[in-house]
Amino acid sequence: MTRLVAIDWGTSSLRGALLDADGKVIEERSDARGILKVPEGGFPAVFEALFGDWMRLEGAQCLISGMAGSKQGWVEAPYCACPAGHVEVGRKIIRIDAIPGARIAIVPGLSDEHDGVPDVMRGEEVQIFGAMALTGASDGLFVLPGTHNKWATVRKGRVAGFRTCMTGEFYALLSQHSILARTLDATAPLDEAAFLQGVTQSENGHGLLHNAFGARTLALFERMPKEELSSYLSGLLIGEELRTQSLQAVGEVVLIGSPVLTERYTLALRAAGVATRTLGAEATWAGLHALSGFLAAADSNGIQP
Amino acid sequence: MTRLVAIDWGTSSLRGALLDADGKVIEERSDARGILKVPEGGFPAVFEALFGDWMRLEGAQCLISGMAGSKQGWVEAPYCACPAGHVEVGRKIIRIDAIPGARIAIVPGLSDEHDGVPDVMRGEEVQIFGAMALTGASDGLFVLPGTHNKWATVRKGRVAGFRTCMTGEFYALLSQHSILARTLDATAPLDEAAFLQGVTQSENGHGLLHNAFGARTLALFERMPKEELSSYLSGLLIGEELRTQSLQAVGEVVLIGSPVLTERYTLALRAAGVATRTLGAEATWAGLHALSGFLAAADSNGIQP
Repeated sequence: MTRLVAIDWGTSSLRGALLDADGKVIEERSDARGILKVPEGGFPAVFEALFGDWMRLEGAQCLISGMAGSKQGWVEAPYCACPAGHVEVGRKIIRIDAIPGARIAIVPGLSDEHDGVPDVMRGEEVQIFGAMALTGASDGLFVLPGTHNKWATVRKGRVAGFRTCMTGEFYALLSQHSILARTLDATAPLDEAAFLQGVTQSENGHGLLHNAFGARTLALFERMPKEELSSYLSGLLIGEELRTQSLQAVGEVVLIGSPVLTERYTLALRAAGVATRTLGAEATWAGLHALSGFLAAADSNGIQP
Repeated sequence: MTRLVAIDWGTSSLRGALLDADGKVIEERSDARGILKVPEGGFPAVFEALFGDWMRLEGAQCLISGMAGSKQGWVEAPYCACPAGHVEVGRKIIRIDAIPGARIAIVPGLSDEHDGVPDVMRGEEVQIFGAMALTGASDGLFVLPGTHNKWATVRKGRVAGFRTCMTGEFYALLSQHSILARTLDATAPLDEAAFLQGVTQSENGHGLLHNAFGARTLALFERMPKEELSSYLSGLLIGEELRTQSLQAVGEVVLIGSPVLTERYTLALRAAGVATRTLGAEATWAGLHALSGFLAAADSNGIQP
């Protein structure tokens, strides 16, 4: 009886799911031990502590995506260059032989390049493959909001190319470490009107570097309540991000991410006349399930770390 | 014998100069006690310690610009709305009666408003007035780079309007606190070629949120040496700032600020076909000297804090 231990091992946290032969989720787990919190040489021990019981189930094998495959991770799985679909990525899956008897493999990320500047993703490619499997869509624009958002163009089932936007990190920096932090409540819940006001403001042609200062002066002149300012700033940033995308011919965007972020992108995209379809963690599990067919090949191509 | 104690009291530091009746600098001083480092009620003591000897000179009086006139400063001097020249600002100078026998007054900042969003400056208006006095220019674009840059349009000797760009603060946040900080040397000296490469890159239409990530991937793929990355990032930011200004009809820009910043703006503006003329601290002293004619009126209008 085949079981897949599917893991998305990120920078600051990780999530795992036990899947049956059809890709159905039997159990889910999450943990704060992202790759930056694993001590040198500590990956086998953390893995065993978190997933050892699942791996001892009959026929269990494991597939890991995300930053665990980066230079700072468990074993480096070199990037697969775009255009790339699940076949190209599947063929570059790398086996990890760190734990005797355990069949563990790691998925490479994707790389792209624009005018001599590289771009990278790790983990999002699996979510995109999963979203394709779940929605049946093999063409379109897939957007994955997070700390570093990915905007991926999919053509005939392959990621044709993508761009990263640091929108999530800019929001964290501005709301927590800039002068705006003095007058803004970063923990306030989303205020839709203030958020959309920020989205509209971002379109005035004066740019983020100027518009962000408005989140300071609106507070200084008491024109906007403290608890609306974080939504306004979020709208400024996401509006700026949308402004630099080609959305003219896009009918629908597939959004993959946490509800708190996909809700904001849905609002901003709707304001731009673009419909959305939203997926969460299920895209990760579907993507790892879809790639698990390549595990047998990875076994024979397997390298020793 | 009239002496002017001219002070630019900012957020994180202050500078003072003793000027003769013609505005000539006799002596200059600077100190780290910006307004955020002055304890509550501590302004008179800090002032006395730093400038008490100058104030005891025959006929000495003092004029202060900058954040000392803000809500968090010594005495609040309410903003003067644009359009405003040195007459409008001079009339709103406020006397400080905190030290018996000392003639001290404070210059208000300027406010502007665009589509319901206010904008503010404190201290830069004095530098602009000084630059006008020193250059003879009474029309044009005046740019004051700093943590929060000011782009001011001057018409017939008055500041017609202005916009703030948080470029300096964005650079500090990204180079010190973002993921870019891991691979970038923020202390490296300016590399002109890398800086201009960043300026060019900023014009690709994909926006700062995307382009900033390139400063990470160029390091990751070892396409740019660590010591060039901070110049590249600086170019991305200043290029983005220039991109949102109307520079078509601008022949020359008056730049006022520290050499390390004005050098970068000169390079970027030159690349955009715009000539520059640069001034430093002398603009502050010339501006306070020009405004000192309003001190007598401030004495009679003086309010007690």
